Amino acid sequence: MAGGITQEELQLAARNHGMPLEALRHDLTPRGLHYLLIHYDIPAVDAAAFRLEVRGRVGRELSLSLADLRERERVDVPVTFECAGNGRAQLDPRPVSQPWLVEAVGTAMWTGTPVRAVLEEAGLLEDAVDVVFAGEDRGVEGGVPQRYERALPVAEALSGEPLLAYAMGGEPLPPQHGFPLRLVVPGWYGMTNVKWLSEIRVLDRAFDGYQHARAYRFMRSDDDPGAPVSRMEPRSLMVPPGVPDFMTRERFVAPGPVRLEGRAWSGWAPVEAVEVRAGDGPWEPAALEPPLGPAAWRRWTFDWTATPGTHVLACRARDATGRVQPDDPPWNVKGYANNAVHRVTVTVRDA
Amino acid sequence: MAGGITQEELQLAARNHGMPLEALRHDLTPRGLHYLLIHYDIPAVDAAAFRLEVRGRVGRELSLSLADLRERERVDVPVTFECAGNGRAQLDPRPVSQPWLVEAVGTAMWTGTPVRAVLEEAGLLEDAVDVVFAGEDRGVEGGVPQRYERALPVAEALSGEPLLAYAMGGEPLPPQHGFPLRLVVPGWYGMTNVKWLSEIRVLDRAFDGYQHARAYRFMRSDDDPGAPVSRMEPRSLMVPPGVPDFMTRERFVAPGPVRLEGRAWSGWAPVEAVEVRAGDGPWEPAALEPPLGPAAWRRWTFDWTATPGTHVLACRARDATGRVQPDDPPWNVKGYANNAVHRVTVTVRDA
Repeated sequence: MAGGITQEELQLAARNHGMPLEALRHDLTPRGLHYLLIHYDIPAVDAAAFRLEVRGRVGRELSLSLADLRERERVDVPVTFECAGNGRAQLDPRPVSQPWLVEAVGTAMWTGTPVRAVLEEAGLLEDAVDVVFAGEDRGVEGGVPQRYERALPVAEALSGEPLLAYAMGGEPLPPQHGFPLRLVVPGWYGMTNVKWLSEIRVLDRAFDGYQHARAYRFMRSDDDPGAPVSRMEPRSLMVPPGVPDFMTRERFVAPGPVRLEGRAWSGWAPVEAVEVRAGDGPWEPAALEPPLGPAAWRRWTFDWTATPGTHVLACRARDATGRVQPDDPPWNVKGYANNAVHRVTVTVRDA
Repeated sequence: MAGGITQEELQLAARNHGMPLEALRHDLTPRGLHYLLIHYDIPAVDAAAFRLEVRGRVGRELSLSLADLRERERVDVPVTFECAGNGRAQLDPRPVSQPWLVEAVGTAMWTGTPVRAVLEEAGLLEDAVDVVFAGEDRGVEGGVPQRYERALPVAEALSGEPLLAYAMGGEPLPPQHGFPLRLVVPGWYGMTNVKWLSEIRVLDRAFDGYQHARAYRFMRSDDDPGAPVSRMEPRSLMVPPGVPDFMTRERFVAPGPVRLEGRAWSGWAPVEAVEVRAGDGPWEPAALEPPLGPAAWRRWTFDWTATPGTHVLACRARDATGRVQPDDPPWNVKGYANNAVHRVTVTVRDA
């Protein structure tokens, strides 16, 4: 990591938070441990007065209460979320924004109703191109006052996967996760999952709002328009073995057999393999458990024999498209999608 | 804030997290928004096999299951927690540890059974001096392998307030808040509230474990033995008004009447007054609501008229002992108990 973290980055790190990696041992991330990235402030939304407005290039506008949404088809689906900026603080030079190391991830059981059926009821007009999802959270970004808005192309919005979610882990959404309603788009980076969702607006053109035109693009330089960020690259993480030093987070492991474990996911295709490497040894296959669902991580384990000394343990995932985690992080101006191999340094010694 | 935040501080900030200040609008902090400071890793504790062992200078040792604890007298009490290191990152020079700004706070409804009755049942011997509470979390700190342990003097442990808590917000403790059992000591800084509690050990001498002898002391220099950290100094915080810039967290407020609001607490005595100041104006009294309970924060409000320009809004609390928040933070080697006046800079302009 290059240079010191700035006051602005610290302010963001104090508000937002990652998932401590030992929580990888849970299939579903316990409440309060799922990562959080909130662009502006958590808005206070009155659930009783709440309406989801559906408008724009539709045959008929809809205005749906929470009760209306709960009466529709109900889907429960485990989904792994990852922030597009995960790994940003490990890039060099370090893009300045929320300074994630590797913890910006979590998996929850989301409950809601498919976006597709709502759009079908509203009736998309033939000239519909993009579907904008607008949240109640407001602020300023890059000098532009705005509410948080992201769009999906019509084909993605109608794919059947995107969900209007009103529950997380079987309970109403917590305020910080979008109470009372949010979008959940399996497989995409987290910026897609608009929280505090109150409007769906169908456009006859490509959406050019701030979060598409300026943020969330892979830019090689400041004047590169770049390509949009969309689905999650494959990634694996491990539970750091042994015990930590409070301050340095250095890990201490007793000699002998150690079961390493972690989780792996990809937004492009199922994870087909996870490999583990100790020091300069070869990459060796980890044992894989079935995924929790088509859009959720799968657990892996690997039996390692710890010998005295210092070792760098590494893991990497490969998905069915052939995408594999790189040794070195891909760099871009805003620091998105750094899915480099996860490395954990451990000192093996008698306790 | 002096200098850049280090990699080690960032690692801590990525794991631990504060309460976003807009959550001050809630009487009880919603699940997942309460601050968290975890010294080592969150341990996995098997609730079915769990026992709380009570031993040392007692007439008879006890070994209590969770069911045993739940069958005892049940107390529900709202308690405000604050990390002793809250405000550390605003000190100059900045002590290096978890780099809290001001968000390391939260209030929850805790449910459990009084420590006193358990100690009375075990029967403290006449030579009992300190009562040690030991958690299941283990790690290394200052080069010393240890489990997390903190003690209370016998008189404090028997005061009736300390609780063996098995529920938070009416549900079993989340893993990160000490599942299945933790200590809750109303009025004391957070380090006292030992999580993953599994042993109570009564000593015939003052406890000299790491978290007493080396950590959590007010030291003026590295070789100053210092005085122990105990109860929370008075503090008030405000919900930052208006909307933020994502990156800088600068606040923008529309001109006109603005209702400021926040919370105030003290571990020494009830909060008697909160005052608010805008720019170079006088300190003016805020309106105070009753506290949620004797050990929980109270809400305050203040009606301010926003005029175009930049303003520094400040709030400070005074408790019944006469303690008041200082303009400038008190400095000590490890950065504890910085309860300086809370200041929020806002830019007032038409949206």
